[in-house]
Amino acid sequence: MIIVMKPGAPQSAVQSVASVIRDKGLETHLSQGEQVTIIGVVGDKTRLNSQQLQVMPYVDRIVPITESYKLTNRKFHPQPTRVKVGSHEIGPDTLTIMAGPCAVETEEQLMSIARAVKKAGAQIVRGGAYKPRTSPYSFQGLEEEGLRYMAEAKKETGLATICEVISEEAIEAAAKYVDMIQIGARNMQNFQLLREAGRSKMPVLLKRGLAATIDEWLNAAEYIIAEGNPNVVLCERGIRTYETATRNTLDLSAVPVIREKSHLPIIVDPSHATGVAAYVPALAKAGVACGADGLMIEVHNDPAHALSDGPQSLTFDQFGGLMSDLAPYIKLSERKLTL
Amino acid sequence: MIIVMKPGAPQSAVQSVASVIRDKGLETHLSQGEQVTIIGVVGDKTRLNSQQLQVMPYVDRIVPITESYKLTNRKFHPQPTRVKVGSHEIGPDTLTIMAGPCAVETEEQLMSIARAVKKAGAQIVRGGAYKPRTSPYSFQGLEEEGLRYMAEAKKETGLATICEVISEEAIEAAAKYVDMIQIGARNMQNFQLLREAGRSKMPVLLKRGLAATIDEWLNAAEYIIAEGNPNVVLCERGIRTYETATRNTLDLSAVPVIREKSHLPIIVDPSHATGVAAYVPALAKAGVACGADGLMIEVHNDPAHALSDGPQSLTFDQFGGLMSDLAPYIKLSERKLTL
Amino acid sequence: MIIVMKPGAPQSAVQSVASVIRDKGLETHLSQGEQVTIIGVVGDKTRLNSQQLQVMPYVDRIVPITESYKLTNRKFHPQPTRVKVGSHEIGPDTLTIMAGPCAVETEEQLMSIARAVKKAGAQIVRGGAYKPRTSPYSFQGLEEEGLRYMAEAKKETGLATICEVISEEAIEAAAKYVDMIQIGARNMQNFQLLREAGRSKMPVLLKRGLAATIDEWLNAAEYIIAEGNPNVVLCERGIRTYETATRNTLDLSAVPVIREKSHLPIIVDPSHATGVAAYVPALAKAGVACGADGLMIEVHNDPAHALSDGPQSLTFDQFGGLMSDLAPYIKLSERKLTL
Amino acid sequence: MIIVMKPGAPQSAVQSVASVIRDKGLETHLSQGEQVTIIGVVGDKTRLNSQQLQVMPYVDRIVPITESYKLTNRKFHPQPTRVKVGSHEIGPDTLTIMAGPCAVETEEQLMSIARAVKKAGAQIVRGGAYKPRTSPYSFQGLEEEGLRYMAEAKKETGLATICEVISEEAIEAAAKYVDMIQIGARNMQNFQLLREAGRSKMPVLLKRGLAATIDEWLNAAEYIIAEGNPNVVLCERGIRTYETATRNTLDLSAVPVIREKSHLPIIVDPSHATGVAAYVPALAKAGVACGADGLMIEVHNDPAHALSDGPQSLTFDQFGGLMSDLAPYIKLSERKLTL
Repeated sequence: MIIVMKPGAPQSAVQSVASVIRDKGLETHLSQGEQVTIIGVVGDKTRLNSQQLQVMPYVDRIVPITESYKLTNRKFHPQPTRVKVGSHEIGPDTLTIMAGPCAVETEEQLMSIARAVKKAGAQIVRGGAYKPRTSPYSFQGLEEEGLRYMAEAKKETGLATICEVISEEAIEAAAKYVDMIQIGARNMQNFQLLREAGRSKMPVLLKRGLAATIDEWLNAAEYIIAEGNPNVVLCERGIRTYETATRNTLDLSAVPVIREKSHLPIIVDPSHATGVAAYVPALAKAGVACGADGLMIEVHNDPAHALSDGPQSLTFDQFGGLMSDLAPYIKLSERKLTL
Repeated sequence: MIIVMKPGAPQSAVQSVASVIRDKGLETHLSQGEQVTIIGVVGDKTRLNSQQLQVMPYVDRIVPITESYKLTNRKFHPQPTRVKVGSHEIGPDTLTIMAGPCAVETEEQLMSIARAVKKAGAQIVRGGAYKPRTSPYSFQGLEEEGLRYMAEAKKETGLATICEVISEEAIEAAAKYVDMIQIGARNMQNFQLLREAGRSKMPVLLKRGLAATIDEWLNAAEYIIAEGNPNVVLCERGIRTYETATRNTLDLSAVPVIREKSHLPIIVDPSHATGVAAYVPALAKAGVACGADGLMIEVHNDPAHALSDGPQSLTFDQFGGLMSDLAPYIKLSERKLTL
Repeated sequence: MIIVMKPGAPQSAVQSVASVIRDKGLETHLSQGEQVTIIGVVGDKTRLNSQQLQVMPYVDRIVPITESYKLTNRKFHPQPTRVKVGSHEIGPDTLTIMAGPCAVETEEQLMSIARAVKKAGAQIVRGGAYKPRTSPYSFQGLEEEGLRYMAEAKKETGLATICEVISEEAIEAAAKYVDMIQIGARNMQNFQLLREAGRSKMPVLLKRGLAATIDEWLNAAEYIIAEGNPNVVLCERGIRTYETATRNTLDLSAVPVIREKSHLPIIVDPSHATGVAAYVPALAKAGVACGADGLMIEVHNDPAHALSDGPQSLTFDQFGGLMSDLAPYIKLSERKLTL
Repeated sequence: MIIVMKPGAPQSAVQSVASVIRDKGLETHLSQGEQVTIIGVVGDKTRLNSQQLQVMPYVDRIVPITESYKLTNRKFHPQPTRVKVGSHEIGPDTLTIMAGPCAVETEEQLMSIARAVKKAGAQIVRGGAYKPRTSPYSFQGLEEEGLRYMAEAKKETGLATICEVISEEAIEAAAKYVDMIQIGARNMQNFQLLREAGRSKMPVLLKRGLAATIDEWLNAAEYIIAEGNPNVVLCERGIRTYETATRNTLDLSAVPVIREKSHLPIIVDPSHATGVAAYVPALAKAGVACGADGLMIEVHNDPAHALSDGPQSLTFDQFGGLMSDLAPYIKLSERKLTL
């Protein structure tokens, strides 16, 4: 941490700041510039309250040098993390495909989709039983009944299963029925939910918040891991920008950035990012090409009658075609669908 | 709702869309343009699933004409809402000042701040007992102990009290101790929490999400009111943009926009928006001048030792000065601090 | 400037960076932390190429400590700048009202508007003769003919005049007819045009770019002043965000931020920022209340037939009413319409 | 175009709007809903001024149905455009690699880079002779001297050449020395420059503005083509968002979106988008995988001593490695480096 003093800060002000730091048992290094004095801080910064320093007289600003996240930080954990979901492993050797409907609607619907995505090569079936919806008048999900259908789909197809959770009760229910839970974009900074997800010890797919920086996203993952649950997978799903041609702006740069900063796996969701089925294949290929550990793709037996997000869902044929098209890209990435 | 067909859509495609609509008991109006055909829909649109129409052949896009929020919509409730908080009323006749520390730290701290803001003219004391923090290693709040101090502060000063809640348990605890609950920016689309806040029937201050549109914000309020709780006050607290000179970008345009679209009161929080105490007074005056129903201002007895958000907190002297400076602006707005 | 080295950087890497700096005649201060080493740089940083340092082995990042703009920086010019426009002065003692149509359409139109805004109390009449339009098929302005009408309007009313320029030729033409030139948002980083505006020595109103940071804006002003023209006035006119309820998001925080960082006057344009006439009065009052040196307001004799931006224009009556409403706010700001 | 009337609009108001439209020779279709009346407009909308309608009594809003750009619109030109640059063709059959330094610094530097990128497989060498820089104190380019070096590089290597232009004079100079001109992000709405680029009839690479929507970008291209110059290639180079881990946010979704909306070729620039050399290879592969017609990559003989943008430049070895890595992705895209 560096404290930058304002131009003209008197020696007494510099010394006051330095003593506060030294009182906490940390060292200071002063550097007297032509315009400004800066104070470097050496030692365990968690003992310091940077906001306290910020308001001291003549302090201009505080520049953090090290990241606030530790457990998710690649600097301290250079090896890539592998997360087991059912019998499948998400990590550097696999290319994980999670596919399925936005919302679980009926048992028949889910079964037919699960069979289709299994046949096309997916390893995990997704399906929403608890739907966070902008309007209270939109379909909110089947809740526990939907989870039961997910368990049925697993039993029949052998696919691993993932479901979004939006409350502590949903986590408890999901633990009984599915293999992995998802924290959605709108809950990425629902810290209560993050802690519960940590305590559940279940594998967690943590979607990036709509307006979350990569730093905040890794701090959100830190909440989960800090509860003793290292099984976190990140999911880039588009950020909010001024552009309206797509629902959100898929930030594929996040893939190499996360790879550099963290050891956690990262997958890409082009369906929610764009909101348009026609754009999904191009961005799915791009996701694999830029090094993602997997993809989440919406697939529906009948997009025209989907209760949620039909316009972004692929049909069975489109998904089958996409999986064929992806095969050579997966091969180039030196990954496999199954270990 | 209007359905815009793609150029060259055959009559059969237009008719298919029209029948789906008429099958739900709605009327259609066709308009055949030179390039495209559009279909107007007349009737109760809640019977229609617009996403279903979106994926039909030759449909280009769906243009909603009416808003999805009803209970918060000024069109159907032209009179401004008044929300009682303790003995104070937030609404068109008052200018409500909520002031206090970001986080409740000790009983003494809260008491001294409550006395100071009361003396300067505030009607409501704020204080966080449950703190949503980006990093799990930051101070997370005193929880129920903090709420008890709030109740003490009310008893001694007579001020009404407000506290942020981040979980169902926090709502239950808050109901015992404070007059109003706050849903913070990060939880604006935590729909589970919104419903619980609705069921609590307590007055709710709903902060705008960091990347929420005004439309999404009013839909979030709709979740609370739809549970039978009309006591909602909105709070503009800055949105996330590319600009870094302030923590967020205070969107004061939201004040006249909300005034036009909704009957709910709206207050402005320049402290969280800017993150810099020096910018607070100018924007507080601007907030009153553009018609806000109130302000939320952070005040701390000792900003240099605040456990949270010290840099944006005003000292007692600064807050007293601000209240004096605001007085003529409040008078110009034809409002009063007390009825 | 501070250079932060990566964790585990060997002494040799640190020394390489330090020698590059010392070879340019600057001093270095090393601070060896537990995780990282940082190098402070003391001396004239313009001799250094920070991007060169950025790519040296083991360099993590460069943290600038001082701003890149000098001539616009309040640190070196603490007194507020006053800019003379015709016989009017923009600065700390006045509240400048620039009002008029988006585009000059006919001589009669401009004359009637000029008379009306003069009567209501404006000091400067605005009018676009060169219009930057998103589509090439929109009205592009009357060019020099429009400028001549501006000169006529000045002659008849005595108002000072301002006109946007979009090319060197437009600057030359404007110099013959009007008192102040405007660089629009889309040209804020048209560095060629900025230099020409600097060489013209005319007063320049520099609008903030649609996606410009305050830092970039002040650097753009630096281009003008660096050519020997200190007569620069800034204009906040809304930035691009995800919110669509207003055309852009008016960033009123920019007013106190600019006041702290720069000595240049700053005015606010609520008409272009919101794009909606109904929101203009509230934000005009807010602009004055937060300390702006003036306002730019669109006024039109017949908004329904304006060739450009009718929906955001006030009628004569609305503008007259706004000026009356603003009077007490101007008084509170301790400024005057005329010195 | 659709006009949505406000709830409660009287018949007389609806009729007034309809007559204005019919007076221009267009047809209207009225659709009377339960809450609102909408008016569909059929005919040549260029005869109408939509802003005029916007301000008429009881008009709520205007919904455009057809795009404002015509010449760039795929609806009217379904075949993909091919642009000849020297002897190279940019279009659906080729994968075009433009590579070279951000700024031309010396003849030797440019020559060595041109040789290296030619050897690695690039078809076009880029190099900036006129540099738009945020600060007036940064290196601004060699201007015409730099262009002469470009001509030399072409003569020796046979590569086609591209150079950014920032003024009419620069276009005239570039026409003498290079094969293609570039309009940079900051000038994307410098309409004067767009028109000049159109009149030059040279192939133009039009970079997306920092905060430009895809719609505005295509309208900017329309300015060039409307001057009789169809040789336009688009370049996605990142948009401005709140994320700071990369310089801008590369919007790869723009590739499939542009493919759907326009017939113009589109290339991707991961170097400027990220600002970090280490992220370039992953995003270059992603660009090819999602269907781009080419890439622009910064390459420098000595990034540590580059006068501009060293941190994002690849070394010769890195660029050679990238080109090898790209080969199988180019093959998968069914394109060739040379026809």
